[in-house]
Amino acid sequence: MGGTPEAAPHAVVLLSGGVDSATTLAVAVRDGCLCHALSFRYGQRHAVELEAARRVSESLGALEHRVLNLPLGQLGGSALTDLSLEVPQGDEFGRAIPVTYVPARNTIFLAVGLAYAEVTGSDALYIGANAVDYSGYPDCRPEFIEAFRRLAGLATRRAVEGRPPKIVAPLMNLSKADIIRTGLGLGVDYGLTVSCYDPDARARACGRCDSCRLRRKGFREAGVPDPTVYQQPRKESPP
Amino acid sequence: MGGTPEAAPHAVVLLSGGVDSATTLAVAVRDGCLCHALSFRYGQRHAVELEAARRVSESLGALEHRVLNLPLGQLGGSALTDLSLEVPQGDEFGRAIPVTYVPARNTIFLAVGLAYAEVTGSDALYIGANAVDYSGYPDCRPEFIEAFRRLAGLATRRAVEGRPPKIVAPLMNLSKADIIRTGLGLGVDYGLTVSCYDPDARARACGRCDSCRLRRKGFREAGVPDPTVYQQPRKESPP
Repeated sequence: MGGTPEAAPHAVVLLSGGVDSATTLAVAVRDGCLCHALSFRYGQRHAVELEAARRVSESLGALEHRVLNLPLGQLGGSALTDLSLEVPQGDEFGRAIPVTYVPARNTIFLAVGLAYAEVTGSDALYIGANAVDYSGYPDCRPEFIEAFRRLAGLATRRAVEGRPPKIVAPLMNLSKADIIRTGLGLGVDYGLTVSCYDPDARARACGRCDSCRLRRKGFREAGVPDPTVYQQPRKESPP
Repeated sequence: MGGTPEAAPHAVVLLSGGVDSATTLAVAVRDGCLCHALSFRYGQRHAVELEAARRVSESLGALEHRVLNLPLGQLGGSALTDLSLEVPQGDEFGRAIPVTYVPARNTIFLAVGLAYAEVTGSDALYIGANAVDYSGYPDCRPEFIEAFRRLAGLATRRAVEGRPPKIVAPLMNLSKADIIRTGLGLGVDYGLTVSCYDPDARARACGRCDSCRLRRKGFREAGVPDPTVYQQPRKESPP
């Protein structure tokens, strides 16, 4: 990226409102991009994370924050979009594919992001995919991103004109602690973000789901205070 | 495809309600698939084509017809989703990229189709992409479909398990006349389909838009009666 002195490049940044996508937006801003943050209302149990995305987008100076309705829950098949399934608690990661996996979610989000990159004339599309903590998700792997990059090189008008948007996944090989350190260095206020799969109405985190556990571990390993507000005080588990 | 004697394979078929996708559904049925027809309400000017998709789906014996809301019009950028743009009339094809091009449309439709293939346990995902009449659309080219095939081989749980859905584009290299001949051989009632970009409230075709012109030419070249109901009688143009 970097851009010319005359015109800064535009970028679409997929923004969920969690730690990873907030950090990704900060990286895109650091890269000199004018950012179009894009979130999805895709049948989540709660809109708390969309509110977090809005706050993150504002605080990092995105050009705009757009929310698109994608009622994927109508297709069925995941704990994150289907109210009848329980969100698992405990150590879900490291065991095959988590039940919190939403079929083809990143494929769909990247596809819509690609459309929005075309509409906004963006030079890049950023996604906070991460293969370290989400190794169980097929669409968080580097080879998946590489395959999407090839697809993006063929799929749109800009591609035909020889300038497809660059697909950027800057967190791919970072640990959660490294992601948090990166974001703190770029001024991310993680107190604005929400990671919990099951927050209460006041956006307080459950502290028990996989996402809470990963997040808590990340702050601990980064050696910085965890700004998360939990539903009840918890004793820190040993490192 | 073909399937085992015990269990017929399932397939997701992207169905718009036009000639090409109706023929594609008929091909999937011929291939022995139990078909999940999938349509999108993506901000089109009219729902006439969704009604056509429902009729086509029923008449060809699909297991189900599902319609997903995808408000792509919120992203802007195309005559087909943006009411403020005029639909072009006359010879749009053969000239670069048509203004009726919707950014990344097939990428998005295939991505959602991939999700639905995962949810339904389908072995295949059919799309009526065609490179002959739609050479101006980047996402109707064989190399685009091939790139999506590679992506689908990595993107989902079934892919990780070594059985990604087969991406099938059976019309890719057929002329409109060949498509119509194929469909007639498989019992497609094209009187149920709608192709027009600008039909009236009674679903009658304008006879002037690119899609009407292509369709009319297809029936003429196939040497079969055109079942389309037009808004006003037109003199047949010379072949």
